[in-house]
Amino acid sequence: MTPERKARIQRVLNSRQPDLCVVTDYVHKGRNLSAIVRTADAVGAMDLHCVIGDKEYKAFRGTAKGSHGWVKVHRYTALADAVQPLKAQGVQIVAANLSAHSVDFREIDYTRPTALLLGAEKEGVSVEGQALSDAEITIPMVGMVQSFNVSVAAGIILSEAQRQRQLAGLYDAVRIDEKTYQRLFFEWGYP
Amino acid sequence: MTPERKARIQRVLNSRQPDLCVVTDYVHKGRNLSAIVRTADAVGAMDLHCVIGDKEYKAFRGTAKGSHGWVKVHRYTALADAVQPLKAQGVQIVAANLSAHSVDFREIDYTRPTALLLGAEKEGVSVEGQALSDAEITIPMVGMVQSFNVSVAAGIILSEAQRQRQLAGLYDAVRIDEKTYQRLFFEWGYP
Ligand SMILES: C[S@@+](CC[C@H](N)C(=O)[O-])C[C@H]1O[C@@H](n2cnc3c(N)ncnc32)[C@H](O)[C@@H]1O
Ligand SMILES: C[S@@+](CC[C@H](N)C(=O)[O-])C[C@H]1O[C@@H](n2cnc3c(N)ncnc32)[C@H](O)[C@@H]1O
Repeated sequence: MTPERKARIQRVLNSRQPDLCVVTDYVHKGRNLSAIVRTADAVGAMDLHCVIGDKEYKAFRGTAKGSHGWVKVHRYTALADAVQPLKAQGVQIVAANLSAHSVDFREIDYTRPTALLLGAEKEGVSVEGQALSDAEITIPMVGMVQSFNVSVAAGIILSEAQRQRQLAGLYDAVRIDEKTYQRLFFEWGYP
Repeated sequence: MTPERKARIQRVLNSRQPDLCVVTDYVHKGRNLSAIVRTADAVGAMDLHCVIGDKEYKAFRGTAKGSHGWVKVHRYTALADAVQPLKAQGVQIVAANLSAHSVDFREIDYTRPTALLLGAEKEGVSVEGQALSDAEITIPMVGMVQSFNVSVAAGIILSEAQRQRQLAGLYDAVRIDEKTYQRLFFEWGYP
């Protein structure tokens, strides 16, 4: 490992946010899932909880290849299996959903342990997803088209989460435990 | 035209921002261009200046079909042809570029007449694009991957532009001239 590579990995591990993650509620296009993983990595999120059918998941793993190494992708076929363990840990479930009772996405406190729940390309967040979430948020739009591409919506919301966490100093001290740090350091450094 | 449709079109026209646009510097994947057009519409931008080869452009027009009606897509083969007329009108050219002299994207005043210049999937912003721009901006990243997908980057930056313009009241009064308003009203209302 070159000194540059080592320093880069350490910088990234020093910024990792164990209490920020993404849940996808049957988002099934590989290119959207890949863009979401890439964005999750960029803001320091460590886990993508991916609720999806078997076949679509295989296709996604196939197209995305190595690029998933930085964010752990967990796979479920039922949304509750992804969400209930997070809720049990006190993580707030924030659903990105274009509904009448959604609040502006900037009103949420993302410095709290947070899972961002994203809806499917056509169907949006499922009825179950809405029931399981603690808050529903919307990104204001002033155009003719009714929604953003889901990976674009993820980028806008996670970037706001990152801004808030930056201000709160959550990137200024190591937030993952020593064991996880060492494990990822070796996995990433000596693949 | 139903009264709902009429009200919707009027609401959108009342929010249009004639002095906010996007320039793409050889972004060539149809799905990225389509997501960028969709996001431009969502924040009230009216024009996408698309610098691209003939063949890629045809493919893009083919896949995107009707969804482009809300944002006018102009096509160029040379970047200067897209950018020089904007500069002549006093529009600031803001390049999204991962370079050492880029500033944080939130430091820019997007209430000024602004064109956001986006770089190609692999090559990024061209040397010419960098030379033609008034400012270079970067979205901070703390992960292992070096860049966002270009349509995700566009969403993050345009959403900040929208936030600033909202605060400045730029969506509160009609900003397009009467002739353009009437033309778009009839084009959109009676297609
Ligand atoms: C293409 S949209 C789904 C549209 C679907 N027809 C609906 O009405 O929910 C896919 C997902 O992207 C996210 N999304 C897109 N635009 C959004 C917005 N303006 N605010 C919040 N989330 C948005 C949501 O998670 C949504 O479920
Ligand atoms: C996939 S990136 C190009 C990466 C290319 N290897 C480079 O270094 O420029 C495509 C475009 O998305 C935009 N982009 C992606 N990530 C960005 C970031 N963090 N800050 C600013 N712009 C970004 C830029 O316009 C960039 O040219």
